[in-house]
Amino acid sequence: MVGNSFGKKLRITTWGESRGKALGVVIDGCPPKLKLTEGDIQKELDKRKPRQSKITSQRKEKDKVEILSGVFKGETLGTPIALIIKNDVTGEKCYEDLKNVFRPGHADYTYYKKYGIYDYRGGGRSSARETIGRVAAGAIAKKLLNQKGIKTIAYTKQIGNIKAKRIDFEEVEKNSVRCPDKEAANLMEEKILETKEMDESIGCIVEIVIKHVPAGLGNPVFNKLDADLAKALMSIGSVKGVEIGAGFKTSDMLGSENNDQITKNGFKTNNAGGILGGISTGQDIIIRIAVKPTPSIEKEQKTIDSEGNEKRIKIRGNHDPCICPRIVPIAEAMVSLVIIDHLLMK
Amino acid sequence: MVGNSFGKKLRITTWGESRGKALGVVIDGCPPKLKLTEGDIQKELDKRKPRQSKITSQRKEKDKVEILSGVFKGETLGTPIALIIKNDVTGEKCYEDLKNVFRPGHADYTYYKKYGIYDYRGGGRSSARETIGRVAAGAIAKKLLNQKGIKTIAYTKQIGNIKAKRIDFEEVEKNSVRCPDKEAANLMEEKILETKEMDESIGCIVEIVIKHVPAGLGNPVFNKLDADLAKALMSIGSVKGVEIGAGFKTSDMLGSENNDQITKNGFKTNNAGGILGGISTGQDIIIRIAVKPTPSIEKEQKTIDSEGNEKRIKIRGNHDPCICPRIVPIAEAMVSLVIIDHLLMK
Amino acid sequence: MVGNSFGKKLRITTWGESRGKALGVVIDGCPPKLKLTEGDIQKELDKRKPRQSKITSQRKEKDKVEILSGVFKGETLGTPIALIIKNDVTGEKCYEDLKNVFRPGHADYTYYKKYGIYDYRGGGRSSARETIGRVAAGAIAKKLLNQKGIKTIAYTKQIGNIKAKRIDFEEVEKNSVRCPDKEAANLMEEKILETKEMDESIGCIVEIVIKHVPAGLGNPVFNKLDADLAKALMSIGSVKGVEIGAGFKTSDMLGSENNDQITKNGFKTNNAGGILGGISTGQDIIIRIAVKPTPSIEKEQKTIDSEGNEKRIKIRGNHDPCICPRIVPIAEAMVSLVIIDHLLMK
Amino acid sequence: MVGNSFGKKLRITTWGESRGKALGVVIDGCPPKLKLTEGDIQKELDKRKPRQSKITSQRKEKDKVEILSGVFKGETLGTPIALIIKNDVTGEKCYEDLKNVFRPGHADYTYYKKYGIYDYRGGGRSSARETIGRVAAGAIAKKLLNQKGIKTIAYTKQIGNIKAKRIDFEEVEKNSVRCPDKEAANLMEEKILETKEMDESIGCIVEIVIKHVPAGLGNPVFNKLDADLAKALMSIGSVKGVEIGAGFKTSDMLGSENNDQITKNGFKTNNAGGILGGISTGQDIIIRIAVKPTPSIEKEQKTIDSEGNEKRIKIRGNHDPCICPRIVPIAEAMVSLVIIDHLLMK
Repeated sequence: MVGNSFGKKLRITTWGESRGKALGVVIDGCPPKLKLTEGDIQKELDKRKPRQSKITSQRKEKDKVEILSGVFKGETLGTPIALIIKNDVTGEKCYEDLKNVFRPGHADYTYYKKYGIYDYRGGGRSSARETIGRVAAGAIAKKLLNQKGIKTIAYTKQIGNIKAKRIDFEEVEKNSVRCPDKEAANLMEEKILETKEMDESIGCIVEIVIKHVPAGLGNPVFNKLDADLAKALMSIGSVKGVEIGAGFKTSDMLGSENNDQITKNGFKTNNAGGILGGISTGQDIIIRIAVKPTPSIEKEQKTIDSEGNEKRIKIRGNHDPCICPRIVPIAEAMVSLVIIDHLLMK
Repeated sequence: MVGNSFGKKLRITTWGESRGKALGVVIDGCPPKLKLTEGDIQKELDKRKPRQSKITSQRKEKDKVEILSGVFKGETLGTPIALIIKNDVTGEKCYEDLKNVFRPGHADYTYYKKYGIYDYRGGGRSSARETIGRVAAGAIAKKLLNQKGIKTIAYTKQIGNIKAKRIDFEEVEKNSVRCPDKEAANLMEEKILETKEMDESIGCIVEIVIKHVPAGLGNPVFNKLDADLAKALMSIGSVKGVEIGAGFKTSDMLGSENNDQITKNGFKTNNAGGILGGISTGQDIIIRIAVKPTPSIEKEQKTIDSEGNEKRIKIRGNHDPCICPRIVPIAEAMVSLVIIDHLLMK
Repeated sequence: MVGNSFGKKLRITTWGESRGKALGVVIDGCPPKLKLTEGDIQKELDKRKPRQSKITSQRKEKDKVEILSGVFKGETLGTPIALIIKNDVTGEKCYEDLKNVFRPGHADYTYYKKYGIYDYRGGGRSSARETIGRVAAGAIAKKLLNQKGIKTIAYTKQIGNIKAKRIDFEEVEKNSVRCPDKEAANLMEEKILETKEMDESIGCIVEIVIKHVPAGLGNPVFNKLDADLAKALMSIGSVKGVEIGAGFKTSDMLGSENNDQITKNGFKTNNAGGILGGISTGQDIIIRIAVKPTPSIEKEQKTIDSEGNEKRIKIRGNHDPCICPRIVPIAEAMVSLVIIDHLLMK
Repeated sequence: MVGNSFGKKLRITTWGESRGKALGVVIDGCPPKLKLTEGDIQKELDKRKPRQSKITSQRKEKDKVEILSGVFKGETLGTPIALIIKNDVTGEKCYEDLKNVFRPGHADYTYYKKYGIYDYRGGGRSSARETIGRVAAGAIAKKLLNQKGIKTIAYTKQIGNIKAKRIDFEEVEKNSVRCPDKEAANLMEEKILETKEMDESIGCIVEIVIKHVPAGLGNPVFNKLDADLAKALMSIGSVKGVEIGAGFKTSDMLGSENNDQITKNGFKTNNAGGILGGISTGQDIIIRIAVKPTPSIEKEQKTIDSEGNEKRIKIRGNHDPCICPRIVPIAEAMVSLVIIDHLLMK
């Protein structure tokens, strides 16, 4: 009913406002006796942080995770794992000019309509910082999946009109845009710098591949594996579309083109994206998400404040002109949480 | 955890195999004192049935609904409403040749992998007939929404490469493809007949508009309104993609193009599709889903049976070459169930 | 949120008013390939019916169950099992004089306060007939438990001031009060006849024993096995108390008296009733429930109608002066549903 | 599914081991704009602490609460409220002799059977310190209830064989046993001291009264208000029984004695304890719980360790010989959480 928990057998509950005292997550249902250190989680959190590169925000966020419960002598207890990440910057000053002015493309307006109050400092609860808890929990999910030989890999598929043409998983962590195609990565970096100079931002597409999921995972009818993945990914801020396998292309395909025929050696194609009738086929699960351009731009925009007065704003601060590289680990986390949840439910 | 229920405050549970004795749904949480007759539900069910037109399946399904509980003297009691739709055809004979042969693009293979058993008659539980319960429950959801002035309208946006260019809601129920653009409808009908003659099927895109949803509906962070809509729609068989507002197009948009600026008179555009930060803005909610071509085609396909033997099959029976017109009322039902659920949760 | 479903991995949803067209239950999550016939379920339903003995209601209820889905060629499919029990008597006439008069001790008043409407025929949804769905689902739960060697046995422990002094499981189904002590059974039967002659009813205590539950079952902290059992049993109409192991007696025990000490051969006593910290110890689980006297009595009572007018009523019809023998199979069903649910969740 | 969350619309998730770094709770679903300070919560937590009196544990626990999120400028935001209580004592030394020895009456044995690992320091997650999160969340629930004029009052009804004979709410916080009868309180204190001198502990009964709950609250059929209350209370460690209204006494009552007759001025009695058919009548809700004697006693007991070796133990440390005064605020918290949850669900 309430909105800050996700999952059934591995259930996470996140909390924290962008510029409050701390952010965190409670993970309930992690099996006992998993070896777990703060380092395991920090590694994933570090991926989420703005990179120290030309194309990203220059803000510095330490985001150091601390394990408060559920781990005893290096092993999980089966009891809830509470993780906390303290905020360095909790000051208000820099946000006073945005106070009660609804930033276009942000949730300020809708939070105000729903609650009649919102923490205007850095977006409060609707900030991208909310995903810290997701990524921290996702690190545990990934560890559990790895034990079963399952891997989730996300990467930048497209930024603006520049598309990755080859998929080399090894390349992903080698460039600042997390693109599996080195050449495209260079073009994407240029594109982003250009965008930045225009005081603008740009959208992108992230692709996620899940390898070695056993056939037979997922629940009909409403809790289909793809339905749960769609929800998980659509719950990430800025995501405006989700497609699986051939996705929107299927709308202009013939039955014989789209159906994955089967031989003794398995499926001949994978237009289904690894899921049929909501249940995994054993092939790679392949999903793509559309991510809108960062709503925070320096370019002047029209808006109103909470009293209804018209305002013009330029949003300063070091905002990423393209959040693609930061969405990658979040997408990986969400997908990992869904898969491990379905596996534990079996 | 289990998969056949949907919703929280208006919770439906569907049951029934395609060619079993009956199909049905239990609706829990419907407010008391709603006037409700079998006719109200039958009206929606009739939309779901294969139309008696050239372009659709020639099978005859009566699909007569009966209310078994929860309604007393024409009014709902607040207790569970049980609806049953008896099956006319429960025979097995016509399905014996498909017994244990996995139809490509269908869930036969994955159900077998999950359960080790499946009802092979007409797809059993994974059949499109499963959606009877959804549409029946959706009829009640729509009645409840209408009381609050909220309308959900779905229609065929695209079939193959033919797109609706204008949206005239009045047109939708006037043509056999449920397209809001009369001219496009004619082209679509031709396209479908062509496809049929090739023993093929064709994919499509359905668009859903929800009008007059009040601002402030939806739950952060995981139970965002768009996340719940994405799950609901992705849970419909054959749906391979969901996008909201500008959707996948946002991946090649600039921030200033995509952000919906605000003036005293409201938002200037609606690229967000009526939802920001998971909460409704008060604008129209606009969603599109990609629907794959009907997997049942007469054209010969390669597959295997449950023993692993290679087979070639031609799937006979009167299958719709394009299921778009039948997906329309199902999409409307699912979306209505999500919106009323969020409204009742407020 | 809504109230007519129970369980998580074996989830049941019941529906139906006492004198509506039918009552039923949908069971979601039953594992596939369980052999299941209508006879398996009918056997338990027959226990629930008023017995044709002097001490019970003389009403005749056929209560024939029909399986509508989820079973194919004698085996479960893993899909929802829908069961329906049609009502023979749906007439209204005999209830017209009770129309809108709140029977003391019944839920008429509170349903009216909650919903502003209720089906006054035989109690509608708040009738004991609602438990038909529970018992039918419980029959499946018991079959699943039996496969794992687990047995649930309920019996009459006390009626009025007459207590069973010995527990002979074989005796339970041999007498009309379902008491495991033959001598006490005779006294109980006399007591009930006496009560009946006074136009009265009498309360009772039912005890439930669950044998061979493996150690380690249950979830801390809120979903403790005893907490879930307490909820399940307290959800049965007329139950006013639940205790486990030494129960209320522990309030006047010393620590050393109550603690079950442990030796190499296991626990020396079982004051815990088989559960410590919400998790099973491997000993018998022992629970008792207090059942209030049937509220329907012929003796004249004061009450009001829905307009607030004072009324005097004598409730006629063949009501059981003691519902103990009918509560026994219901308690068994509820307890079986909890145990199988926790086992499937492991 | 998992066990550390409670409630639906006001949903709490507790975490923390007895002697870990910290304990805490996340409260999701608290309405926005409630004025809330750490003092509001601390007040309730202080009631839970061992009192500095002769009859209680002499351990000192500071238990200082800190609000980490969900409150902005003194008002709730509608976002999750994270509360943390840091542990002063996290040392291990004093617990080394109990390492892997199952204390009788404690959950050590069952946790070990379930998880194969447990934090043996002070009971780990199964410690009474787990209830800190419940009481902290309960403080918020009580504030929300107070706004609606609803009051929950718990008190010691019986310790050993000494019963409170009068109920004076004003008296409860004036004596060390939280008994509403001054005279009985004196006898209870004596009883406890006596027990302590014997190296023993003693059980008790707590009664909870909820005043001014509006009629019509609660959900049929499985989520009855009394069923939810029973679960909430049975989920508190050491509780072995729950009864409502006349409770176990109804087993020896006649229908006419037990039925609460109704006149124009309302119900004449309250044997129902304020709930009929799972829905509130508008009368006081009255519940009692049986609490077993503290399992930690200095008297020597027989047990085994995790290797199966027989051991004899005397449990030292300053354990309360009767936990009644500490159960009182916990019971109040749990009951408050249930009532506010049902109110928010309406």
